[in-house]
Amino acid sequence: MSFTLHGLGVSGGIAIGRAMLMSHATLEVSHLTIAPRMVEKEIARFAAAMHAVKGELMTMKETTEHAPAELAAFIDIHTMFLEDPELVDKPREIIRERRCNAEWALVQQMETLVAQFEQFDDPYLRERKFDVVQVVERVIKELLGHPGRAVMKTAKGVKEEQLIVVAHDLSPADVIAFKDHRFASFITDVGGATSHTAILARSMAIPSIVGLETARSLIRDGEQIIVDGKRGVVIVNPDPRVLEEYQLRKNQIELERSKLKRLKTARSQTIDGIDVQLFANIELPGDVPIALEAGAEGVGLFRTEFLFLDRGDMPDEREQYEAYKKVVKGMAGRPVTIRTFDLGNDKDIRPDSIVNDRVKTNPALGRRAIRLSLAEPRMFQTQLRAILRASKYGPIKLLIPMLAHAHEIDQTLAALEQAKSSLRGEKVTFDENIQVGGMIEIPAAALAVGLFLRRLDFLSIGTNDLIQYTLAIDRSDEQVANLYDPLHPAVLMLLAHTLSSAEKVGVPVSVCGEMAGDPNLTRLLLGMGLRIFSMHPSQVLEVKNRVLKSDVSELTPNVRRMLRLDEPGKLREALDKLNG
Amino acid sequence: MSFTLHGLGVSGGIAIGRAMLMSHATLEVSHLTIAPRMVEKEIARFAAAMHAVKGELMTMKETTEHAPAELAAFIDIHTMFLEDPELVDKPREIIRERRCNAEWALVQQMETLVAQFEQFDDPYLRERKFDVVQVVERVIKELLGHPGRAVMKTAKGVKEEQLIVVAHDLSPADVIAFKDHRFASFITDVGGATSHTAILARSMAIPSIVGLETARSLIRDGEQIIVDGKRGVVIVNPDPRVLEEYQLRKNQIELERSKLKRLKTARSQTIDGIDVQLFANIELPGDVPIALEAGAEGVGLFRTEFLFLDRGDMPDEREQYEAYKKVVKGMAGRPVTIRTFDLGNDKDIRPDSIVNDRVKTNPALGRRAIRLSLAEPRMFQTQLRAILRASKYGPIKLLIPMLAHAHEIDQTLAALEQAKSSLRGEKVTFDENIQVGGMIEIPAAALAVGLFLRRLDFLSIGTNDLIQYTLAIDRSDEQVANLYDPLHPAVLMLLAHTLSSAEKVGVPVSVCGEMAGDPNLTRLLLGMGLRIFSMHPSQVLEVKNRVLKSDVSELTPNVRRMLRLDEPGKLREALDKLNG
Repeated sequence: MSFTLHGLGVSGGIAIGRAMLMSHATLEVSHLTIAPRMVEKEIARFAAAMHAVKGELMTMKETTEHAPAELAAFIDIHTMFLEDPELVDKPREIIRERRCNAEWALVQQMETLVAQFEQFDDPYLRERKFDVVQVVERVIKELLGHPGRAVMKTAKGVKEEQLIVVAHDLSPADVIAFKDHRFASFITDVGGATSHTAILARSMAIPSIVGLETARSLIRDGEQIIVDGKRGVVIVNPDPRVLEEYQLRKNQIELERSKLKRLKTARSQTIDGIDVQLFANIELPGDVPIALEAGAEGVGLFRTEFLFLDRGDMPDEREQYEAYKKVVKGMAGRPVTIRTFDLGNDKDIRPDSIVNDRVKTNPALGRRAIRLSLAEPRMFQTQLRAILRASKYGPIKLLIPMLAHAHEIDQTLAALEQAKSSLRGEKVTFDENIQVGGMIEIPAAALAVGLFLRRLDFLSIGTNDLIQYTLAIDRSDEQVANLYDPLHPAVLMLLAHTLSSAEKVGVPVSVCGEMAGDPNLTRLLLGMGLRIFSMHPSQVLEVKNRVLKSDVSELTPNVRRMLRLDEPGKLREALDKLNG
Repeated sequence: MSFTLHGLGVSGGIAIGRAMLMSHATLEVSHLTIAPRMVEKEIARFAAAMHAVKGELMTMKETTEHAPAELAAFIDIHTMFLEDPELVDKPREIIRERRCNAEWALVQQMETLVAQFEQFDDPYLRERKFDVVQVVERVIKELLGHPGRAVMKTAKGVKEEQLIVVAHDLSPADVIAFKDHRFASFITDVGGATSHTAILARSMAIPSIVGLETARSLIRDGEQIIVDGKRGVVIVNPDPRVLEEYQLRKNQIELERSKLKRLKTARSQTIDGIDVQLFANIELPGDVPIALEAGAEGVGLFRTEFLFLDRGDMPDEREQYEAYKKVVKGMAGRPVTIRTFDLGNDKDIRPDSIVNDRVKTNPALGRRAIRLSLAEPRMFQTQLRAILRASKYGPIKLLIPMLAHAHEIDQTLAALEQAKSSLRGEKVTFDENIQVGGMIEIPAAALAVGLFLRRLDFLSIGTNDLIQYTLAIDRSDEQVANLYDPLHPAVLMLLAHTLSSAEKVGVPVSVCGEMAGDPNLTRLLLGMGLRIFSMHPSQVLEVKNRVLKSDVSELTPNVRRMLRLDEPGKLREALDKLNG
């Protein structure tokens, strides 16, 4: 039966494919179909993992010898779980019946159990579900450490590029795991315009819809789905006529995309001859080829904290140096802007972060980014030294996140001087004149931008966080995600103020948030005076296309008039006129 | 042995008294000394509570009949805790040896056990401490529901007003519990300038120091302490000479305070004859006499969400109406500004809030205040109706928190119209022309203040939240509390912009955040054009004293010059000159 779901389209385009359901948010494991001959092997892999965890618990119990007796009793219960038919037999049945991987089967059964616990009125009993999750997490970890050799292909021989991932939400770990895949689309029940799902989908240039609320419970594995990313519509089991229509539109979009590719080598210049620099945001050294392929003139933002993802420890100086060097050499003389770690917020998925999150009520307003770096001088020196050492291989700029106070800038510059001085002492060569810039992503920074302009060589506006703080909303919280609005007059004021203040003193400014990659905002930003855009590689060509069709001398007075407006309706009207 | 501790002074003045230690933050119970003859009764009370909780657990176990067997096993462990000598015998010994109340004894022992759990390397084992806490919480709840009849007096017959509360931190519940007490001072290990401790201490006009880090472990019950709230210094077991010196300074401060009291009936006017309105912030109807005693000309901010504190359900329309009516009648014709609920952030201590907090990563950036009210139309209508009904007893103004978008204001006004219309249908009288104002506490609101000025009758600047969002820090997070700065140039810009924009169109603006009550900022605010200050009743007279000694015609050009500065050092210099 055909039905339609509506959500928030966060990445445009049309996808047509088969549903691949993903499991619980906290334990996002892939749903894979295994070959019939591999079923018993998969069951054996599951049994081995359960056995290994049982061993772990026994070892753990030995360490509690001098601890309260209750502790040993708790371990006994977790061991009980590992022997409970609900967690031993049921997943085996699921593997056998649905021919799926062990991780998926286990998580399915866990969800059934969690639902049972959630029915209790007493909060104590309800909370016990966390124990089930804890036990299952241990097993999943064990399974993932020893991935099966089962042939991983999906039902009915569907290829990866025809798969539409249907998930509750995507985690930062998924973002990494999915980078090398070629799925057709992501659709999720929760999330906002700047959720991990949205960011990943845009970076892969595939359509995506979030906030569908019930997609995961209504859609079944293998069902045919149309995703219209622009309109935020999902059509499940479409009628043949609808399918045909969307197939046509999809072909059209693909045609336009292939046209865009021809722009790769075109000079990024407006009609009236103004050069506009289009840079790429990257997360890992492996993104460099993608950036070059998109025709990016450099890296405007290298988010170094991604070096931490999927690992439990800090990369040391040598490892960081190698990563930075790889990017600089890969970009072959093009500028590379390296942002120091923005850790301490939700991007921080080190193993202990779950515990930390419980302690901090508002991590987005806590000790993150430069605040954490200044509080952890050894970590900071390690990174600064690694960046400086890589600077001899090409033009590196240093970018500092989350600055708000003059004394923070001064302390950062002193820390850099310390790193330089130690390298000089060791006779290590580096770029003595490395440029240092600050992110403008806190309202205070945009307002008191004079403090920054007097101290730094360049600025980069991080619109995602700037909007978040200016509007006091957490963009990853679906209850308020609808209040996220790049066109709020206050946001436009802060952008315009930063750009015009910097222009007066000749300090270059880039925008590296999501706004820079949105072709609907290209003209607005050009009219405000922006000449450096940094965005996901997948967006470079579309923005370039817009730049090529824009006339700054015509735009500027219109944008100036637009910025005198503050009523949202009128602002949208003016933007439409600008783009029209 | 005498020693000195340094922290952040959050409420000035000097206190000299005896230490009264409070227990763990999550279970903040009072430490009381009981009469020798009451010791056995206290032990019996403890035993009865343990027995009652055991009964509870048994009943609970019966409800798990059809649940997984592990659940019953968990309950068995919690029952084991209740029979464990560590939790049965040890607290009895503590009660007997230290002659303290059962709650205190139990929490002391709990902390010993929690510390044992925390020593484990494995996070699973460490987390088990939450189970101990859970069991103890049940017993404490039982004990508090059946308070003992033990004579509650402290060691050596010290009176309450000579007691210095030494705590890890104060919770919102403590704030309520302590309101009717007359302690000499609060000092805590954690917290910032706007923590609950700080707010409570300032409202009680007693000295207070937070962020002492180790006070609770270094100070012993009953030790003599000097608290110098202004300098942030705690002197434990002072030498006689030091004690004498501080006694002198204390007497001096008290003399000055009694002089201030004479200003109660003085007209609040500057030297050059400009009237300045000084209002009080209140939290409960019981605060009205304190506001009147301080000479407040009205209530500038009634934080209605405090009606929720210490209870598990929502006050219904009748209950709210009675509360609002009581305040309006109590203020006898003086204006009363009622702010609708600011729920959904840390102030929300309803029983389910612990669970909710785990879900929301950044509650300060989530669905709080008007966002929650608009999402819960029934709750909002109940409050609006109750406020409207109370408006026939005196001049009520309606104040809306956390607005940022034009559509939120429009929706709020539509909701108010709906409430009015339903009351008209019921022939209930109310003030048809009730004034509606908006809080300016989100940077976007201050920047796009035109949206507010065109739609609302008045504005109120909530500087605490405004500073928090403008600087992207959580003021209750001690790791970043030092970055909270009312003098950040960005904050001053937003204040000045709001005040001058409102002045141009003749819309009245008040400041109701902490800045309004700080006499060091009175002249700065007067010079910016502020004429309505709302603050804790305890601060009214000191601010009035400053108003009486200020000349606006002289201040205004100096402040205008000051606002052109942005370097922090120069700003502080200019402020000193203004106050000097």
